[in-house]
Amino acid sequence: MTLLGAVYNCRAIWPGHAGHLPLMSNTAERTLDLATLRQPAAGVEGYVKQFLDGRSLPANLDAAIRYSLLGAGKRLRPILVVHACGALGGDVAAALPPAAAIEMIHCFSLVHDDLPAMDDDDLRRGRPTLHRHTNEAMAILAGDAMMGLAFELIATEVADAQLAGRLSAELATATNDMIAGQVYDTLPEFPESTGPADRLETVHRHKTAALIRCSCRMGALCGGADEGQLAAMTRYGESVGLMFQVVDDLLDVTATTEQLGKSAGKDAEQGKLTYPSVHGIEGSREHVERLEAAALEALSGFGDEGEPLRALCEYMSVRTN
Amino acid sequence: MTLLGAVYNCRAIWPGHAGHLPLMSNTAERTLDLATLRQPAAGVEGYVKQFLDGRSLPANLDAAIRYSLLGAGKRLRPILVVHACGALGGDVAAALPPAAAIEMIHCFSLVHDDLPAMDDDDLRRGRPTLHRHTNEAMAILAGDAMMGLAFELIATEVADAQLAGRLSAELATATNDMIAGQVYDTLPEFPESTGPADRLETVHRHKTAALIRCSCRMGALCGGADEGQLAAMTRYGESVGLMFQVVDDLLDVTATTEQLGKSAGKDAEQGKLTYPSVHGIEGSREHVERLEAAALEALSGFGDEGEPLRALCEYMSVRTN
Repeated sequence: MTLLGAVYNCRAIWPGHAGHLPLMSNTAERTLDLATLRQPAAGVEGYVKQFLDGRSLPANLDAAIRYSLLGAGKRLRPILVVHACGALGGDVAAALPPAAAIEMIHCFSLVHDDLPAMDDDDLRRGRPTLHRHTNEAMAILAGDAMMGLAFELIATEVADAQLAGRLSAELATATNDMIAGQVYDTLPEFPESTGPADRLETVHRHKTAALIRCSCRMGALCGGADEGQLAAMTRYGESVGLMFQVVDDLLDVTATTEQLGKSAGKDAEQGKLTYPSVHGIEGSREHVERLEAAALEALSGFGDEGEPLRALCEYMSVRTN
Repeated sequence: MTLLGAVYNCRAIWPGHAGHLPLMSNTAERTLDLATLRQPAAGVEGYVKQFLDGRSLPANLDAAIRYSLLGAGKRLRPILVVHACGALGGDVAAALPPAAAIEMIHCFSLVHDDLPAMDDDDLRRGRPTLHRHTNEAMAILAGDAMMGLAFELIATEVADAQLAGRLSAELATATNDMIAGQVYDTLPEFPESTGPADRLETVHRHKTAALIRCSCRMGALCGGADEGQLAAMTRYGESVGLMFQVVDDLLDVTATTEQLGKSAGKDAEQGKLTYPSVHGIEGSREHVERLEAAALEALSGFGDEGEPLRALCEYMSVRTN
């Protein structure tokens, strides 16, 4: 994979983004553009298709899964898996099974989160949500199936049994943390003494950061990380994971539904705790800066092979959708 | 574990059952009663509790999971895991992680199947279904969590990495087959040429038989089965799995809601294909006999250690709830 590619029109590739940014690392001036950073996405999508082609699912279930899994989407988590693996000098091919699996878990969580009994959303990634496109029963079952397929993929496609077991444990723990985050978010029950800032942090360390952190850890494991490297990648993943959510909350306030491809202003409408509602818009922006700095600091031990992760972090801090 | 126990009052233990049956095997007269056969259930429940105690789930999610997982229930699948392991001369302790995991998968499937958008059921195991006891969002999320916890349990509690990988693959494939079965059952889309008997068979080979077959295979793997023994256990599991469903369909017609602990007569009400509706009551009873014979034949290579599985099969053929 060529990491240093030509400069494309970023607006077309990561829609809504302001364009190519000149990036500075602690080691060199960056020329990584989004098209280059997003290169792994196509490979992961191809791999997912191939895996689904090899299963004989009921035709309507297969169609529902492909609708959710292969439509538009940033593919942030699989991209992180591949680049975290690359940061350790690992091969892209080794990272494909966990990259595909984490995208399946992410899509399952979106499909269930959009259900009428949950967030009751009509729009996702610029298209009708799955239960609007099909029906509620199919959305429940297709979500279930995506989770099951993720674990099947890890168990059957990773040849090294030790690695497969480790990845499966990582994926399962992160999935359960994410589900716990959904519970904290949708059905909050906190001790009375817990203040809003702590509640918010608890929700998003689980709901959003868990899968993003897991992506980085799984990629690092595929690249053969030692304990120190794994710990550094965990700090990076935790920081960009939380940063992703703060930016998401900011965009819910400042961007339009058209820009987002999902309903804007939903958080305030549903009276949810968000970073802007707890810390203000300016305070949230400062929080983004602090998290970005922490993420880049975590990568200080990685050389040029860590560049894609540094560049991704910087793009994520300024994204507009 | 003592397999040859005293004769207890079976009606109290497997409620609704007519009592102790004298059983004949191909090797010896049987003295196995249901209390003895069900002995592993308590061990599996204790193991599940211990695993949940070791997690720090949100309190309301934890309560919802325990409500579903530790209430009444036959525990058929975990009991099959333990006895299949025992049939190979394996230790009960080795079978506990997959036994607990398959019960989690089974309970997750019940919770989601009961949802308003699915079978819309109010009663399960003699109590309100989880979405009636709590709410729909919690039922969706607790179901999701039980699936995730099942895979976490296999990945973290089975020390032998090769075995863990194999069990995880078995569990994931069976889970996906079961979900496909729910789709065939709830949202049927078959080629027009598929007759009702074939549709019915397709639904239940996936929906019901997959997890029961998987229970037997996972137990056999924990017991160190060779390929021939695994194939025999697969035939046994497939036969008792289908038999379980034929008996279930018969009970839906012939038993009361009180006996079943779930709504009787739902199948006919919802116009579902069932064995009695396709093959008649007498034809279905003959099918039970054929499947029972096939299950016992599959066990012909197992000696006295296969007795619990033989006895379970015979109890399952005459169960009344």
